[in-house]
Amino acid sequence: MNYIIGIDLGGTYIKAGSVSKEGKLLKEVSLPSQGEIGPQAVVSQIAKAVDNLRSEHAGDELLGVGIGSPGIVDLDGGTVKYPPNLANWKIFRLGEEVSKKIGVRAEVENDANAAAVGEQKFGAGKDLTSFIMITLGTGVGGGFIVDGKVFRGETGGAGELGHTTINMDGPQCGCGNRGCVEAYVGQRHLSRRVAEQLKGHPESLINKLIAGDPEKLEPKVISEAADSGDQFALAVWKETGTYVGTAVASAFNLFDIGTLIIGGGVAKAGRPLFDSIEATIKERVLSSLKPRVKVMKAQLENSAGVLGAAALIAE
Amino acid sequence: MNYIIGIDLGGTYIKAGSVSKEGKLLKEVSLPSQGEIGPQAVVSQIAKAVDNLRSEHAGDELLGVGIGSPGIVDLDGGTVKYPPNLANWKIFRLGEEVSKKIGVRAEVENDANAAAVGEQKFGAGKDLTSFIMITLGTGVGGGFIVDGKVFRGETGGAGELGHTTINMDGPQCGCGNRGCVEAYVGQRHLSRRVAEQLKGHPESLINKLIAGDPEKLEPKVISEAADSGDQFALAVWKETGTYVGTAVASAFNLFDIGTLIIGGGVAKAGRPLFDSIEATIKERVLSSLKPRVKVMKAQLENSAGVLGAAALIAE
Repeated sequence: MNYIIGIDLGGTYIKAGSVSKEGKLLKEVSLPSQGEIGPQAVVSQIAKAVDNLRSEHAGDELLGVGIGSPGIVDLDGGTVKYPPNLANWKIFRLGEEVSKKIGVRAEVENDANAAAVGEQKFGAGKDLTSFIMITLGTGVGGGFIVDGKVFRGETGGAGELGHTTINMDGPQCGCGNRGCVEAYVGQRHLSRRVAEQLKGHPESLINKLIAGDPEKLEPKVISEAADSGDQFALAVWKETGTYVGTAVASAFNLFDIGTLIIGGGVAKAGRPLFDSIEATIKERVLSSLKPRVKVMKAQLENSAGVLGAAALIAE
Repeated sequence: MNYIIGIDLGGTYIKAGSVSKEGKLLKEVSLPSQGEIGPQAVVSQIAKAVDNLRSEHAGDELLGVGIGSPGIVDLDGGTVKYPPNLANWKIFRLGEEVSKKIGVRAEVENDANAAAVGEQKFGAGKDLTSFIMITLGTGVGGGFIVDGKVFRGETGGAGELGHTTINMDGPQCGCGNRGCVEAYVGQRHLSRRVAEQLKGHPESLINKLIAGDPEKLEPKVISEAADSGDQFALAVWKETGTYVGTAVASAFNLFDIGTLIIGGGVAKAGRPLFDSIEATIKERVLSSLKPRVKVMKAQLENSAGVLGAAALIAE
């Protein structure tokens, strides 16, 4: 049987998985990425993960290795530029080096773009030629599929939805700008905002769930409270949805795209968040777009990184 | 000699011009568009303008007619959908009907997109494969050139830069959204803002120039005062530039494009406005984009509509 290997390259760990051409995850391994040593060490770790998976598929043909990487990716040589969280790494032809080392085709794409390709090939975007994928987690990532392909821009850096300004005088964002949507809904910012508002809501179930420890104020806890009908928790998701929806409405107007696919840890909040995102987009986009607005949940969930990377080869 | 006819279709007038393949405007005529009667009347007026210009070029070959139209344009049949300011017009195959009537090829594009194509073929964008064109006038229009072509989105409605939110709680915009950049810098909004601020600036030269008549508070007057060194007028352009620059920074991050070309009446403000736009973009875009940020003035100016339309045929 033919199979693909998908590599989700992170600052600390590499997650690698063997995947069928239809997007079924077969085996998975995890190794330290050794990003702190440098790119050659990362190549060795990727090769180790590939060898490991290959030994599980003796007799089968490996079609190629797809890699989802942080940073800006140039398709020429699968070059990764200045990836955040990978020290000692400036500009490196990762795809070329991996391919040399393991003897099969290797394709590299930015991780947010790879997640979008994953949804397009194997998930919620299967029947769509154009959509915007937003990933709500520590950061806010974006991957834009336009006419069936990743929209990459001049250098491969396109789709930075998290750094769309929603309030020009808003809070400082890690990128240096003020009022980016990430500065409102990135996980740390979200938790900080909720911690402040929580003081005014002693009745909220969230207080009981975190037992006075603000470190525990994670999206999961807010969702748990919201699922129990906690009004404050529901209001948090509603407010969060207005921030996300405002940024997405600007992107919809610029790209003339009407479908949003939502992934990432925060997306587990489900309906209370999604309904607010959808209502906000419909309220804010141009009238010609309103009837086309559609908000969907990503389908690949926990394996999105590996499956998205594998989808680069399935293309 | 071969020539092209460019048609700038407006709600009240049709401006038509014969143009050389190199983008030189040869002759120009203007006729009422008769948009209030309906699309067939507009076709007749376009045909009249074309006949008029043809008679000036006896013996020369007309290569085609390009039309820049308000509204969303579908390239199939040159179909114009619900154009604002053209009553009794829903969905109409304008290109096809004009072509039938005059017996030559006709291409239609949205007017903001046509302006961008004009700059690409004949103006400031000649050596560029990707740029964003912003038109600052009554409204704020956008035309995006990506990899040498107009970026059109799913239905041809892409590039609506004027309706990028810069402040989610900002003033009401004509589109129904709040805090769009157009609600800050569209000509009427700009004049209203200046009228309010002017009360606190009795020393400003603008007071003398408008002689107490707020109707005269046009961009031209603000520029006249700014050119004389009026501090308040200079501050107006600086503030206006921060609004424009904030919206453009979001678009640059989404498209990974670094070049902005600025056209439209308000662009006549020149350096005081342009410097502020450029500084704001550089302050706000992602660090990978900062070195590529470039702000240019459109070159086609008063004939941008006709030359942009003609450029559709020169392609």
